[in-house]
Amino acid sequence: MTKNKQILLAKRPVGTPDQDTFKFVETDIKQPENGEVLVRTIYVSVDPYMRGRMIDAPSYVAPYELNDVLGGGTIGEVVESNSNQFAQGDIVLGQYGWQTYYTAKEDEIRTIDKDIAPISTHLGILGMTGLTAYFGLLDIGKPKEGETVVISGAAGAVGSVVGQIAKIKGARVVGIAGTDEKNRYLKEELGFDEAINYNTTNNIEEDIAKASPNGVDVYFDNVGGEISDAVHANLNKYARISICGAISKYNIEGEDIGPRIQMTLIKKSASMQGFTLYDYADRFPEGSEALAQWLQEGKLKYEETIKEGFDNIPDAFLDLFEGNNIGKLLVKVDNQ
Amino acid sequence: MTKNKQILLAKRPVGTPDQDTFKFVETDIKQPENGEVLVRTIYVSVDPYMRGRMIDAPSYVAPYELNDVLGGGTIGEVVESNSNQFAQGDIVLGQYGWQTYYTAKEDEIRTIDKDIAPISTHLGILGMTGLTAYFGLLDIGKPKEGETVVISGAAGAVGSVVGQIAKIKGARVVGIAGTDEKNRYLKEELGFDEAINYNTTNNIEEDIAKASPNGVDVYFDNVGGEISDAVHANLNKYARISICGAISKYNIEGEDIGPRIQMTLIKKSASMQGFTLYDYADRFPEGSEALAQWLQEGKLKYEETIKEGFDNIPDAFLDLFEGNNIGKLLVKVDNQ
Repeated sequence: MTKNKQILLAKRPVGTPDQDTFKFVETDIKQPENGEVLVRTIYVSVDPYMRGRMIDAPSYVAPYELNDVLGGGTIGEVVESNSNQFAQGDIVLGQYGWQTYYTAKEDEIRTIDKDIAPISTHLGILGMTGLTAYFGLLDIGKPKEGETVVISGAAGAVGSVVGQIAKIKGARVVGIAGTDEKNRYLKEELGFDEAINYNTTNNIEEDIAKASPNGVDVYFDNVGGEISDAVHANLNKYARISICGAISKYNIEGEDIGPRIQMTLIKKSASMQGFTLYDYADRFPEGSEALAQWLQEGKLKYEETIKEGFDNIPDAFLDLFEGNNIGKLLVKVDNQ
Repeated sequence: MTKNKQILLAKRPVGTPDQDTFKFVETDIKQPENGEVLVRTIYVSVDPYMRGRMIDAPSYVAPYELNDVLGGGTIGEVVESNSNQFAQGDIVLGQYGWQTYYTAKEDEIRTIDKDIAPISTHLGILGMTGLTAYFGLLDIGKPKEGETVVISGAAGAVGSVVGQIAKIKGARVVGIAGTDEKNRYLKEELGFDEAINYNTTNNIEEDIAKASPNGVDVYFDNVGGEISDAVHANLNKYARISICGAISKYNIEGEDIGPRIQMTLIKKSASMQGFTLYDYADRFPEGSEALAQWLQEGKLKYEETIKEGFDNIPDAFLDLFEGNNIGKLLVKVDNQ
């Protein structure tokens, strides 16, 4: 009989996670009871925020327990239904993590529309990723036409959508990413005005100033650390900083030490706001509608890096911190 | 003939200003031309923000030039008028700084109401100080009834007004100040719920937690640095930080280094906003009206520390950084 393969949290990482962080197990598949369906996983999402859930500290989502199934968003196919809301063959979105099968209660999953775009986009530009970009930029950054928006982690899943939405809103868009290939993609494919390679620059603060001759009005921050310090030095009066992530600091041991931001915020009458997508849960329909429409109008492009094979999920996750991927990182599960 | 005594910026301070920063000079008094009045200074304001103007760096107000008259807000009496808008004996508010006389154009000064409260309050609770507290707390902090507001520099000119406005709005108010005497004043005179002495605490982060059993919803920050780091560790989800000042760091040489705030803001979906009073210039009438009304209703109390003697202005200014004063610090000028 087919088994359910799972990846569990074996050990809480200190510093950079490694293979000891993860444990592969096989369990029996639980047959769906009344109101439940059995879902076979097709795609799993690997996202930076999962690093935060691996440690035992209060945050915006509960930490994983030791021996919990890791991961988050998933897309799968209903293979057996004991619910009148789902039929065999339905493609569904859930949050059941890194396992090959899942027996879901009917209120834990929802059917996704296969006609708008490839189903994988519901984990990316039409899913959490796109919504994170949408609310973080528009609700906190509030870019106005002609203003300059700077984005760190610009070629990542969220950053690449942020830049395109900023262009839709008429802003000048400057991306910061770690390779020339990514920067070519940002400028040539996504229409960013400028792109800065933080790995090859001699003076990132000056490069940001050059790329932003009118200063920085909105900073969408995915990375934190020294790159962000350099952006802060270029803020305009009344600048808005939207703090989505700080991936450069997720794996450091000890505190994240650097220049305190208070004096800069006073001098610029600037604001800095952290957020997580679930702050906007009651506005998801608004965001989803806008993203789907822009995608269908050809105003939004997206890139996915899809790795193959369930066993490669930990490697894919660790790759996030190497900065090797463009766009949304997914793993396609080979479980048929 | 009477001379005008002035205090000029002799040297830009590095670190803590000292007597070399200041230069006393005497100049002739300029007789008022058409549309001008001659004002004799009665009170001058000494404020922490003036430290920022002494260095040559872009900020929200232009830096003083070398040999400029220092200072800011002043209250004086019209001694000679060549304007039909002002009569001899009028008490006027201006921004003409640390000098005993000033020949003002009629649009540089305005008459103040002597009947509401002592005239000195127009440099304090009814002036910039009160307005700073009003807008910084209500517009950025947005305290709701039952929420907890923590204030650093709580016994200072701005902080002591912030706490009282927070009480008017129904919040729990926790002050942080540097002496037991100040803390007694905050609790017994101003009605703060709790007050923490940062000089005698063994663990300020724990003391803030104890004084804020429901966590911190609003933090009104006058001081920055380590005290603020400790408040940040106690923030609630959706907390708002209003950055008014960072007096603990105005006199340090080099950068203000400490824990970066990004991860905290993400975990708490919290926001941090810097401001300066002039961001709210178009709403001053609203603020002035509210403050005057609360003062007349007895809902706002104020304390002034009034030093005597023009020659003592530099010492009074330097005292600001010693944390020795309660409430607004003024110097009464002995020039009659």
